[in-house]
Amino acid sequence: MARGRFISLEGGEGVGKSTQLRALAAALRARGHDVIETREPGGSAGAEAIRSLLLDGDAGRWTPAAEALLFAAARADHVAKTILPALEAGQWVLSDRFLDSSLAYQGGADGIGEAVIRQLHQVGSNGFLPDRTLLLALPEAEAAGRAAARDRGAADRFGARDAAYHARVAAAFAQLAAGDPARFRIVDSSGSAEDVTARLLAAIDDL
Amino acid sequence: MARGRFISLEGGEGVGKSTQLRALAAALRARGHDVIETREPGGSAGAEAIRSLLLDGDAGRWTPAAEALLFAAARADHVAKTILPALEAGQWVLSDRFLDSSLAYQGGADGIGEAVIRQLHQVGSNGFLPDRTLLLALPEAEAAGRAAARDRGAADRFGARDAAYHARVAAAFAQLAAGDPARFRIVDSSGSAEDVTARLLAAIDDL
Repeated sequence: MARGRFISLEGGEGVGKSTQLRALAAALRARGHDVIETREPGGSAGAEAIRSLLLDGDAGRWTPAAEALLFAAARADHVAKTILPALEAGQWVLSDRFLDSSLAYQGGADGIGEAVIRQLHQVGSNGFLPDRTLLLALPEAEAAGRAAARDRGAADRFGARDAAYHARVAAAFAQLAAGDPARFRIVDSSGSAEDVTARLLAAIDDL
Repeated sequence: MARGRFISLEGGEGVGKSTQLRALAAALRARGHDVIETREPGGSAGAEAIRSLLLDGDAGRWTPAAEALLFAAARADHVAKTILPALEAGQWVLSDRFLDSSLAYQGGADGIGEAVIRQLHQVGSNGFLPDRTLLLALPEAEAAGRAAARDRGAADRFGARDAAYHARVAAAFAQLAAGDPARFRIVDSSGSAEDVTARLLAAIDDL
């Protein structure tokens, strides 16, 4: 059986990743692929338990270093228990966030550094990377508006951070995409949901 | 105010660490020191939450790499939130296990390797080390007997492993002690509890 493909969706808060992940999965299923939808942090029983440690509580609950280690632990479990078995069974795996979120948030915006995050990913997951990473990007003003429109009560430890923090995250994502053009595609997430899904499908056409 | 001292107690299962930690703390308090007793995994609110992920569930719950990352995350929180603030306030800190347990269990017995565990400790805790590490060591047969006598229902994911595993842990501890004679003291834990406490006190007399 042919090995499946692993595609990650990345981007800041309020950019429409979750909605687009569902639409992309549906479009791939309509083309006959067996698709699983997953997310980070989480995506396996152990990683979901770690997720609640990471997203609940106040902003200063963890030091940036402890947080980076927890994300790497969750990712190691997600890769070993969910992603690799699915790919080996021929399934396509779509993940809402993966390594690049750790590189952009903890590595870039929190100042841990990209090299340390990659080192932790090497220890936890043998440096495993997606076949394609789709970076959803919105004009900055529009992104802020969408984030503000979301239920404030539902904001987690990351969504609740300030605009300067989210600007650092966006800059880090842009730099990651520029540094690995073979794996990344930057996809404009403005316009109708159907338009965005069509752009995402075009960006994985070669797979 | 003079900085306090950080002392870790190490050793395999059933060697009497917890009992001796309490006795050593009492003896140091009788000498006028302000002492806090702590433990790993755990010792701070965040680390205690990670502790339950590490000790509960079946033996195959985590890959060895995910487990090593979780221990390093718990230790980072323990160091930042409990140990360093106490030392800066002039307190002595006694911890039931610290880095050397990760080096012996995950690094040695699980095959992750000592270098990786030290790398994770560098990321999480800037490589912070105890002023003294007391390795409680029992003749092998006596250690097995004490472990067997403990309530089997209370055995956690580590205590429940087999004799060959615990022999690898003991060998790894002995090697760590031999490699850092300035920090380590090997203390014979056979005989009466009072005798062992007296040996431990002698082994920190220079502090």
